[in-house]
Amino acid sequence: MGEALAPKELELLHAWWRAANYLSVGQIYLLDNPLLREPLTLDHVKPRLLGHWGTTPGLTLLYAHLNRVIRRDDLDALFVTGPGHGGPGLVASTYLEGTYTEIYPHIGHDEEGLRRLFRQFSFPGGIPSHVAPQTPGSIHEGGELGYALVHAYGAAFDHPGLLVCCVIGDGEAETGPLAASWHSNKFVDPVRDGAVLPVLHLNGYKIANPTVLARIPEPELRSLLEGYGHAPYFVSGDDPAAVHQALAATLDEVVAEIAAIQRRAREDGVRERPRWPMIVLRTPKGWTGPKTVDGLPAEGSFRSHQVPLAGLREHPEHLAQLEAWMRSYGPEELFDDGGALRPEIAALAPDGPRRMGANPVANGGLLLADLELPDFRAYAVDVPAPARSTSEATRVLGTWLRDVVRSNPQTFRIMGPDETASNRLSAVFEATDRAWAAEIRDGDEHLAPDGRVMEVLSEHLCQGWLEGYLLTGRHGLFNCYEAFIHIVDSMFNQHAKWLKVTRDIPWRRPIASLNYLLSSHVWRQDHNGFSHQDPGFIDHVVNKKAEVVRVYLPPDANCLLSVADHCLRSRDYVNVIVAGKQPALNFLTMDEAVAHCTRGIGIWPWASTAVDEEPDVVLACAGDAPTLEVVAAAALLREHLPDLRVRVVNVVDLMRLQPDTEHPHGLGDREFDALFTTSRPVIFAYHGYPWLIHRLTYRRTNHHEFHVRGYKEEGTTTTPFDMVMLNDLDRFGLVIDVIDRVPGLGERAAGLRQRMSDERLRHRAFTRETGDDPASVRDWVWPGGPPAAG
Amino acid sequence: MGEALAPKELELLHAWWRAANYLSVGQIYLLDNPLLREPLTLDHVKPRLLGHWGTTPGLTLLYAHLNRVIRRDDLDALFVTGPGHGGPGLVASTYLEGTYTEIYPHIGHDEEGLRRLFRQFSFPGGIPSHVAPQTPGSIHEGGELGYALVHAYGAAFDHPGLLVCCVIGDGEAETGPLAASWHSNKFVDPVRDGAVLPVLHLNGYKIANPTVLARIPEPELRSLLEGYGHAPYFVSGDDPAAVHQALAATLDEVVAEIAAIQRRAREDGVRERPRWPMIVLRTPKGWTGPKTVDGLPAEGSFRSHQVPLAGLREHPEHLAQLEAWMRSYGPEELFDDGGALRPEIAALAPDGPRRMGANPVANGGLLLADLELPDFRAYAVDVPAPARSTSEATRVLGTWLRDVVRSNPQTFRIMGPDETASNRLSAVFEATDRAWAAEIRDGDEHLAPDGRVMEVLSEHLCQGWLEGYLLTGRHGLFNCYEAFIHIVDSMFNQHAKWLKVTRDIPWRRPIASLNYLLSSHVWRQDHNGFSHQDPGFIDHVVNKKAEVVRVYLPPDANCLLSVADHCLRSRDYVNVIVAGKQPALNFLTMDEAVAHCTRGIGIWPWASTAVDEEPDVVLACAGDAPTLEVVAAAALLREHLPDLRVRVVNVVDLMRLQPDTEHPHGLGDREFDALFTTSRPVIFAYHGYPWLIHRLTYRRTNHHEFHVRGYKEEGTTTTPFDMVMLNDLDRFGLVIDVIDRVPGLGERAAGLRQRMSDERLRHRAFTRETGDDPASVRDWVWPGGPPAAG
Repeated sequence: MGEALAPKELELLHAWWRAANYLSVGQIYLLDNPLLREPLTLDHVKPRLLGHWGTTPGLTLLYAHLNRVIRRDDLDALFVTGPGHGGPGLVASTYLEGTYTEIYPHIGHDEEGLRRLFRQFSFPGGIPSHVAPQTPGSIHEGGELGYALVHAYGAAFDHPGLLVCCVIGDGEAETGPLAASWHSNKFVDPVRDGAVLPVLHLNGYKIANPTVLARIPEPELRSLLEGYGHAPYFVSGDDPAAVHQALAATLDEVVAEIAAIQRRAREDGVRERPRWPMIVLRTPKGWTGPKTVDGLPAEGSFRSHQVPLAGLREHPEHLAQLEAWMRSYGPEELFDDGGALRPEIAALAPDGPRRMGANPVANGGLLLADLELPDFRAYAVDVPAPARSTSEATRVLGTWLRDVVRSNPQTFRIMGPDETASNRLSAVFEATDRAWAAEIRDGDEHLAPDGRVMEVLSEHLCQGWLEGYLLTGRHGLFNCYEAFIHIVDSMFNQHAKWLKVTRDIPWRRPIASLNYLLSSHVWRQDHNGFSHQDPGFIDHVVNKKAEVVRVYLPPDANCLLSVADHCLRSRDYVNVIVAGKQPALNFLTMDEAVAHCTRGIGIWPWASTAVDEEPDVVLACAGDAPTLEVVAAAALLREHLPDLRVRVVNVVDLMRLQPDTEHPHGLGDREFDALFTTSRPVIFAYHGYPWLIHRLTYRRTNHHEFHVRGYKEEGTTTTPFDMVMLNDLDRFGLVIDVIDRVPGLGERAAGLRQRMSDERLRHRAFTRETGDDPASVRDWVWPGGPPAAG
Repeated sequence: MGEALAPKELELLHAWWRAANYLSVGQIYLLDNPLLREPLTLDHVKPRLLGHWGTTPGLTLLYAHLNRVIRRDDLDALFVTGPGHGGPGLVASTYLEGTYTEIYPHIGHDEEGLRRLFRQFSFPGGIPSHVAPQTPGSIHEGGELGYALVHAYGAAFDHPGLLVCCVIGDGEAETGPLAASWHSNKFVDPVRDGAVLPVLHLNGYKIANPTVLARIPEPELRSLLEGYGHAPYFVSGDDPAAVHQALAATLDEVVAEIAAIQRRAREDGVRERPRWPMIVLRTPKGWTGPKTVDGLPAEGSFRSHQVPLAGLREHPEHLAQLEAWMRSYGPEELFDDGGALRPEIAALAPDGPRRMGANPVANGGLLLADLELPDFRAYAVDVPAPARSTSEATRVLGTWLRDVVRSNPQTFRIMGPDETASNRLSAVFEATDRAWAAEIRDGDEHLAPDGRVMEVLSEHLCQGWLEGYLLTGRHGLFNCYEAFIHIVDSMFNQHAKWLKVTRDIPWRRPIASLNYLLSSHVWRQDHNGFSHQDPGFIDHVVNKKAEVVRVYLPPDANCLLSVADHCLRSRDYVNVIVAGKQPALNFLTMDEAVAHCTRGIGIWPWASTAVDEEPDVVLACAGDAPTLEVVAAAALLREHLPDLRVRVVNVVDLMRLQPDTEHPHGLGDREFDALFTTSRPVIFAYHGYPWLIHRLTYRRTNHHEFHVRGYKEEGTTTTPFDMVMLNDLDRFGLVIDVIDRVPGLGERAAGLRQRMSDERLRHRAFTRETGDDPASVRDWVWPGGPPAAG
C-alpha cells in the first residue's frame, strides 16, 4: 500500500502545520515584527509571557489533518479541544482557514492583522489564553479540564450527519469526568446520532509530571481502550513526515470505518453496538519547540508545558533561541509579502461552513429553534379550594414533559442520574425510552437505542451531555436529587462563565437555558437521611452573574407547570427549579398559579388576615415544605389569635428578593416594602440555608426585622415532620416565632406559646414511639372543610 | 482440585450468611416479633418501610467470606462498602461478630436486643439507613456513591500490613470519581503500602436501570479491568452453594497472590508494578429475596433496589410473602431460644480487633499520633519593617512542609492535582518524591514508588485519598488551585457531614483535620483567566456546621506559617487556607504574625492613623491581594488626607467576623464593636465574593455601615492590578469609597477623588498599551524608605 499523502500534499499539509505553529508561538511571544522581517529584539516581545505551548502542536496537527478529510469527503465536522490551554493553536487554525478574520475583521490577512493577532493574545483588553467563547468553532471552554469527551457526545446526539473530533489530553484523561465519559458510547444510537472520534493525545506530561496513560505499557492501554468499547488506532512518532503519513492513513481508515458503521446501522439495520474507532496520537510535548533550554530537555518534556523560553530580558540567549525557533518554521515560505497565507496553502481549508471554525453547530444559537410546547394549562390539577387536595408536583410535570418529548422528537432530551422514575417523571416513558446501546434483555423496561431520556449514574455525564447538547442548538432538562447536584458545581461554574462571556460576543447567538429540576429534596430524604440533605446548590448558583442565573421554588404542582414552561422558553440562563415529588398540598388554581409565577412573589389572601391593611406580622415562605408549614402556622394563628393581622407572602422566583439594581428580576424597594412592610416582623420559612435570604434582602428597609428559618444542617432518616422540627421550621415553631417577635404579643399569647411548645414535644414523642408522623400533621389540610376530591 | 470449603464449613458459612440476611430484612421491616416466634402481623411491621435490600445480600456474602480468610490467615482487614445503601447488611454483620453489642450494649444478643436492632434502623431517633459513621468498621459514608475505591486506597497507604477489601457497586462504578479511582494502583508501593482488593459487585441494576458494566460482554469487561492494571477473577452464579465454593476458592487465590506480590516486592526487591488481583462478583440483585412480587420479577431485577414488598397494609399477600421470605432463612436454626446466634455459627467470626467492625483502622482516631512539627518560627522571613520586602508565601511554607515530611516519614502526605510545584511548594521535593508506581524514565524528576507527595490530575482522587488517609489515623494537606477545588464540593459535603456526626458518637475518636491550601487564587490567574477565577469554595464551606469548618486568609508568609502550624495540629475540622504563591509584601515579623493569627483579627497600628481613638473610617481586609490594596489605600489617605483618622483592620480567621453565638471562633459584640466601631463607615476589601462578609456580619451593630468590595465575577487573562481594578478592589477605588462614605469628606476631598479616578484611567490605559502594570503599583511598598533586604 502506498503512502496516504502524495509528496505535494504532504508538503502543503506540513506547510499549513508550520504556519499554525508559527502563529501560535507568535501569539505567545510577540508584540511586533510578526513576520520577522527584521531581527528580533526585546522590544518586539511581550513584557509578560503567558500561554501554553506544550499541547499546541498536537492540536494544530490534528486540525490540519481533519481539514484534509473534510475537504475530500465533504464532512460536517466539529473540533472539541480537550487541552484547551492550547488556545493559540485554535486561534491560529481558525485564522488560517479565514474564519477568524470574517468574525473579527480587524484581524486581517496582512502584516498589521498578524501584529494584532499576536498582540491581543493573553493581553489586557485582548483575548483569553485558552480555547474560549471568543474562539470560533469552540463549544468548550478549555480552562477546566475533563469535560471534552462528554461535551463531544452531547454535540453528536441527534446530529446524525456530524462527526465530532474530540482531542483528549492525557492530563485531563486522569480526571473523573473524563474517565467516566468513555462509556458514553453505550448511549449513542448509530442511526440517529452523529459520531464521536476520540483522539487521545499522549504527549506524555502534565504541568510537572508524566501522565498515567503515557506510562502504562501499550498493550495495557490498548486493553483499557478496548474495554471502553473502542477500536483504538495508534499513531506515534516525532518525525513530522512519518507522523503526517501515519496520521493521514489512520484518519482515512477511521473515517471510512465510521461511515461503514453508520451505513450498517442505517441501511442494513444492524443493531449491535458497534466498536467505534478512536485514535491514540503519541507525539512529543512542545513538538518543534526548543529541544533544550538552559541545558535541560524542553521538547518532549513537562518543561514545555507553558512558555519554554522565559526571562528573555535576563537571558539574551533565550531571545536568540526564540528567533531561531520561529524562523525554523520558515515564515517567508508561508506568508506572502503582504503577510497573507500563500494561496496554495490556504487552499487546504474547507469551504464556508465546512470550516470547523465556521460550523454553525459550534454556535448553537444559529441552529436553535423554539420548542413546540403543549399548553401547560391543560395539564393543571383541579384546585377547587386552596390547601385541600394533594398532588405529586413532579408527577404532574411528567405528563407535560411527556408531551414536550412527543412534540419535539429531535431537539429535546431529559438527563438524570437514574432518577427520572424516582423523581416521578415516569409519564415520559409513555412517549419515549431511555437511551441504551448496550445489551437489552427480556424484562427490561423502557430501554432503546433511540430513547430520549438519558440515565447514567453520573451527574457529570448528565451535565456534560446536556451542556454539549445545548451548546449545539438544542433543548433539555436535567433532573437530579437536590443534594447531589453539588457534584457538578464546578461544571456549572464553567457553563455560567461561558454564558456570561458569550453575552458580550455579538456573533454568538443565544442558546437554550440549562434547566435543572432538583427533586428528592432536603426535606424528604425519608429513605436516605443526612448524606442526601443539602440545599446549597442555590447558594452556589447565586454567586454567578445575576444576568445568567434564575432560581424558582414553585410551591405546588400548578406553579411547577407554569415555571417549567417559562424556563423551557428562556435563553442563555441557568434555571434552577426545586420541586418536591411527594404528595403535597395544592394551593393555587392554574390561573392563580400563572399570575403568581408571573409576579414571582405575592400575598396569598386566602391564607392571610391582613392583605391590604398593614399586618402585625408577615409570614413568608419559599419552597413547598416551608410553604406547607407557613400556611399551617397561619391557620393556627387565625384559630387562636383571630385578631392578629397576618400576611402570608409566597416567593416563587427567589431573585425577586434582591434589589432591582442587583438582579434583573429584583423588586424595586417600594414594591418590596409594600409586601414586607418597613417595620413589622417577617418570619421567613425558606427551603434552604437560611442566610441566603438575609443575603438577598440585606439592603431592604425592613431587613433587621427578617427572621429566617431554614435548613440548618440537622437531619437523619426520619419522618417529614420530624425533619422540619429538627430545623425549627415546623408550624408550631413558627407560631412561637410570631409570638416572640410581634411586640406586645408575648404576654397575651403565653398560653398559646406553651401549647405550641407542648405540641412539638408531643409530636416528637409520637414519632419516636411509632416511627410515623401524627395524622394531624401528615394529612393536614387548610381547615374549614373536608379535602376536595382529586 | 477439591472444593475450597469442606461440607461442614460450607454449611456454617451459609448459616452465617442466612443469619446476616435475616437480620437485614428484619431491620428493614420489623418493629417486633424479631425471631418470628409468632405469626407475623401488621402490628409487627414498621409503618414506614425504608431501606435498601437489593445490594445487601452481596455485602453480607463478602463479609462472611472475608471472615473465613481473616481467621485462617490472621489477616488485618478493612471492609469498605461502596454500595453504602446496604446499611442493614453491615449492621447485621457487625452485630453477628459481636462488635455492635460491645459498642452499643443496649443492642444485646437476645430477643430484646434483636427487637431494638430492628426497630432502630431507619427509625426516628434510631440509626441511618446507610453505612454511616454510626456503623462500626466503616470509614465511608455510603450515602453518596463513587468514593469507595479512592477511600480504600487512602486507607491502605502507609499501612503495609493492611488488606482493604473494597466492594464497588456497579451503579457507582458509572460515576466519574470511581472511574478515575481504578488508576490509584499506579500510586501504590507494594513495599510500603497495604493492598486494596477491589470487588466489583455486578448485581446488574441501579434504581430503575441496568448498569453499564453488567451489560457489556464479559471479554470487554475483562479487557477494561486488565486495562486498569488488574488481574480480574470472575465469580458468578445464583446457586448459593456453588457461589460459596467459587468465592471461597477465589478469595484463597487472590489473598495468596497479594501476599506473593508483597513478598516479591519486600523480600526479593522486585520493582515492577504488580498486576494486583481483583474480583468480579456477579450475583442477583436482592438475592434470596422474593422471586416475584405482584407477578413481576423482584429478585435479580431493579425492583428489589429498595423495599421489594411494600404496601403491606393494602396487600395482605405481601405480608404473607414477607413472612415466608424471612422464614426461608430458618431463624430457628440460626438463633437459640434466647435469641443469641448459635455458638458454632458465631465461632466463624475473627477475634477481637481482627473483626472488621472492630479494626482500629476504621476508627482512625484510635491510631492517631500527633505530628512531629518543626518550629515554624525558624522558617520565618525577616521583616525589619512592614510592607517593604516581598516573599512568595507558599514557597516559604514549602520549606517548613519539607521538614514536616522529613519528621513524619510514615504519617503525613501532601496531595495535589499536579500543582505542588506550580503552587511553589517545591522545597518538599528536597525531602521526598512524588509517589509513582508506573514507568519511570531517565530525566524524570522526583518520581519514586515511595514518594510522599501524591499528584494526579484529579481533584477527586486527591480529596478521596486524603479522606481515606485521615479517616484511618494519619495527617495530610491538599494543595489545589482555588477555583477547581469546587470539583470536590460534594466530597467535602460528605466529609463535613461525617465529622459533624462523629462528634456525637463517643466511641469515634477525633481524627486529623482535612487541610486545604488553596493557592493560585482568583487574583493571580495571569496565565489562565476567567475560567480559573472562583473564590466561592469558602461560601460553600461555611454552609456546613460551624463546629467543623474554619477558614483562614493569612496576609503574608509569616502568617501562613503560623496558620499552617495551627491547622496541622487541629482535629476534626475542615481547615481552608487561602494563600498566594506570587511575590507579595511581608507585613509582620514572626512574633507579630503569631500574635495576629492567634487573635485571628486585629488592628495594624503601623498602617493606621487611628488605633485607640475613634476612627473616621475603618479599612478592613482579608486575603493577601485585598490587604495590599488596603494598605496602599491607607498610605494614599495618610499622604493626601493626613488628618483623616483611618484604622486598618486585617482579618486572618474569617470566622471571627461571626457572632460568638454562631461560631466558636466568633468575636463577642463588644470586641467586634471595639474594632469596627458602632457607626463609622467600614470599607472592607475581601478576597472572595463580597456578600459573604455581609452574611457573617449582618447581626453586628455597625453592619449597615459595611461596604464590601470583592470578586464580582469580572476577569480575564490580564495583569494583577487590572484584575483588582476590574472588580473595584484597587487602592484608588478604595480611596474613592472612603471619600464617598465618610460624612463631610466629599467636598473637602473632591480634588483627591478626581485624582484617584484619573489614576485608575491612567493605569488602565498603560496596561492596555504595554501589557504590563505600571511599576508604581507592581513594585509598590509602604512609603517611607527603600525596601528592606530579603
